[in-house]
Amino acid sequence: MQLNDLVSCSETKARAGEIHTEHGSIKTPVFMPVGTAGSVKALSPDDLIETGSQIILGNTYHLLLRPGMDVIESAGGLHKFMSWKHPLLTDSGGYQVFSLGQMNKISEEGVVFQSRIDGSSHRLSPEISMDIQRILGSDIVMAFDECTPYPATPEVALKSMELTHRWEKRSLDYFQSTKPRYDHAQQLFGIVQGSVYPDFRKTSAHALVDMGFDGYAIGGLSVGEPKEDMYAITDVVTDILPLDQPRYLMGVGKPEDLVHAVALGIDMFDCVLPTRNARHGIMFTWDGPVSVKAAREKDAHEALDASCPCYTCKNFSKAYLRHLFKASELLVYRLASIHNIHFYHALMSAMRTSIGNNDFPRFRTDFFNRYDLNRAGEKA
Amino acid sequence: MQLNDLVSCSETKARAGEIHTEHGSIKTPVFMPVGTAGSVKALSPDDLIETGSQIILGNTYHLLLRPGMDVIESAGGLHKFMSWKHPLLTDSGGYQVFSLGQMNKISEEGVVFQSRIDGSSHRLSPEISMDIQRILGSDIVMAFDECTPYPATPEVALKSMELTHRWEKRSLDYFQSTKPRYDHAQQLFGIVQGSVYPDFRKTSAHALVDMGFDGYAIGGLSVGEPKEDMYAITDVVTDILPLDQPRYLMGVGKPEDLVHAVALGIDMFDCVLPTRNARHGIMFTWDGPVSVKAAREKDAHEALDASCPCYTCKNFSKAYLRHLFKASELLVYRLASIHNIHFYHALMSAMRTSIGNNDFPRFRTDFFNRYDLNRAGEKA
Repeated sequence: MQLNDLVSCSETKARAGEIHTEHGSIKTPVFMPVGTAGSVKALSPDDLIETGSQIILGNTYHLLLRPGMDVIESAGGLHKFMSWKHPLLTDSGGYQVFSLGQMNKISEEGVVFQSRIDGSSHRLSPEISMDIQRILGSDIVMAFDECTPYPATPEVALKSMELTHRWEKRSLDYFQSTKPRYDHAQQLFGIVQGSVYPDFRKTSAHALVDMGFDGYAIGGLSVGEPKEDMYAITDVVTDILPLDQPRYLMGVGKPEDLVHAVALGIDMFDCVLPTRNARHGIMFTWDGPVSVKAAREKDAHEALDASCPCYTCKNFSKAYLRHLFKASELLVYRLASIHNIHFYHALMSAMRTSIGNNDFPRFRTDFFNRYDLNRAGEKA
Repeated sequence: MQLNDLVSCSETKARAGEIHTEHGSIKTPVFMPVGTAGSVKALSPDDLIETGSQIILGNTYHLLLRPGMDVIESAGGLHKFMSWKHPLLTDSGGYQVFSLGQMNKISEEGVVFQSRIDGSSHRLSPEISMDIQRILGSDIVMAFDECTPYPATPEVALKSMELTHRWEKRSLDYFQSTKPRYDHAQQLFGIVQGSVYPDFRKTSAHALVDMGFDGYAIGGLSVGEPKEDMYAITDVVTDILPLDQPRYLMGVGKPEDLVHAVALGIDMFDCVLPTRNARHGIMFTWDGPVSVKAAREKDAHEALDASCPCYTCKNFSKAYLRHLFKASELLVYRLASIHNIHFYHALMSAMRTSIGNNDFPRFRTDFFNRYDLNRAGEKA
């Protein structure tokens, strides 16, 4: 998978480009909203398009447990099941097995785990994950890896990374030996592991590039390590990954993380943060996050951001949003999610534009001068 | 308030027409979705318009307790607060005080009650209710009445009705002595009470018509009485109410109730049923209600109603809706509500058309031949 029309920042590693899938092209850097269980929480496909979403994520683990692959297969794949006509990426299921799964048994073969919904027993392995993602029919498939827990000793991290490499090779071989179920092509991304150890990360990046994937992800970050480690590791890895292929920093992050990571050469992000925060009344603005549930918003009869063109800001006041939160009205989870997803996409779009204008460093400086990381923490 | 362009069925008392408010005209018979706390649950103003909503309801009781009249007043009224640019009706608060209120003390003056949110003490009276509805700025204001509980002995029903008449006269006098807060006119509807006793209902209808309201509602029905009583009372009352003014059957009802009541000369309805049922997975079709959570819908990869033009049926399968319900995904409450509200409006629209074509009796026969009242009760 090529990163086309590549424009690079002359001062940082930031770059802008476009990747193609048969469900449409994606301008990068891009943020991908997370549709865990076949739905980006509280948002419809129309909402996602309206807010500027180009590609969304589906979670293999959740979809495997519910509704199950028989239902997705008889629907004709995840695109059709959830009525999403645009690009779709699915993860391998590995991350959730390790973070949510109960009674996991990991072996060379793969992992056996129990459903947290009904206690039923399930297996995942490189081959099973590829089979599932073939059934899901995502445009971008993730290789099956072990997300190394944090913290991990060098010994544990090394062992985990080596297992991941064997699993990723099996993922690649099996993926290449199988065909898409539906009438569109699928691409396979490898995932770099190696915990917070730069040497392991270098080894891992080289190992994956040698295997030859369609794109490369950095996994095992944003799992509790210090922010400096996250950025340092990202920097080390993007130095090695091919310039002409997409790079995806998994599970990241806050607006400020996206700006830092774009500067380090990342093209793709996913995170539940904008939708999860929305449901808790934390809404993002260029001045920082705002808690619209705060008492000070009681009579705030103006939009959260008067310059924001999202449906929420064009139509509703902070006072109304606050009221809906206080009354637990379902509408507000959608309205807040619309705004936050729109904000994330607007941030990515602004970064793409500034990179295109070779003006990214100034954008970054302006962003951090204005954006107050702790604004939502103000006492109401 | 005149019912304009009146067309009457030659065999039943059904009629179609149009009423005007400064926020727009309303074709009758009409169903009014209920926006209890300043939001029709799970639906945005755009959703409401898209589904065919012409006028919605706001509840004085809920809005008085939260966010409170100071917030609505500083917002410039309920239309602006909730970003609803179309006609709006508010109730008087009486019904909820009696059904939801705690520690009510009723006197000739009015009622004192405690908030179920924070225990604070509040008063409602004809004058206070009018003041509140002036602040809310609804296009149609309801007189303050006592909703007679069911069952009620003739003695209790008579006493309650007489109190209601005194309160409604005070509502009317006070309403006429005050001016709208905002730049649009408001209309006042009286409410007929009298429990299930035809003679009381006749007395009440005559008393209210003598007072002279802009429109007339029938209250105190759909509160537990047998359906035959509801229809018999409606029939008695619509025989007395002026032909050229709108008639509103409060809190009704199921699709079949709407068809029966339109035949008895009712023009306006409100009910939480379509939205509440939606949130519980009961969706309405021309063949009857369907429980989309049922196991038989697991692989139902077709729309609930392939002929339905609503956003939900145009885009999503029953299997997907079922999955979202099972996963408690927020999106489904909106999707199911969109369909149900659309269905209610489509039913009203079909009745308006059939009345216009002097074909309502056949429509009614066809409706009941096809509509299976108990379809959702099937075992999955």
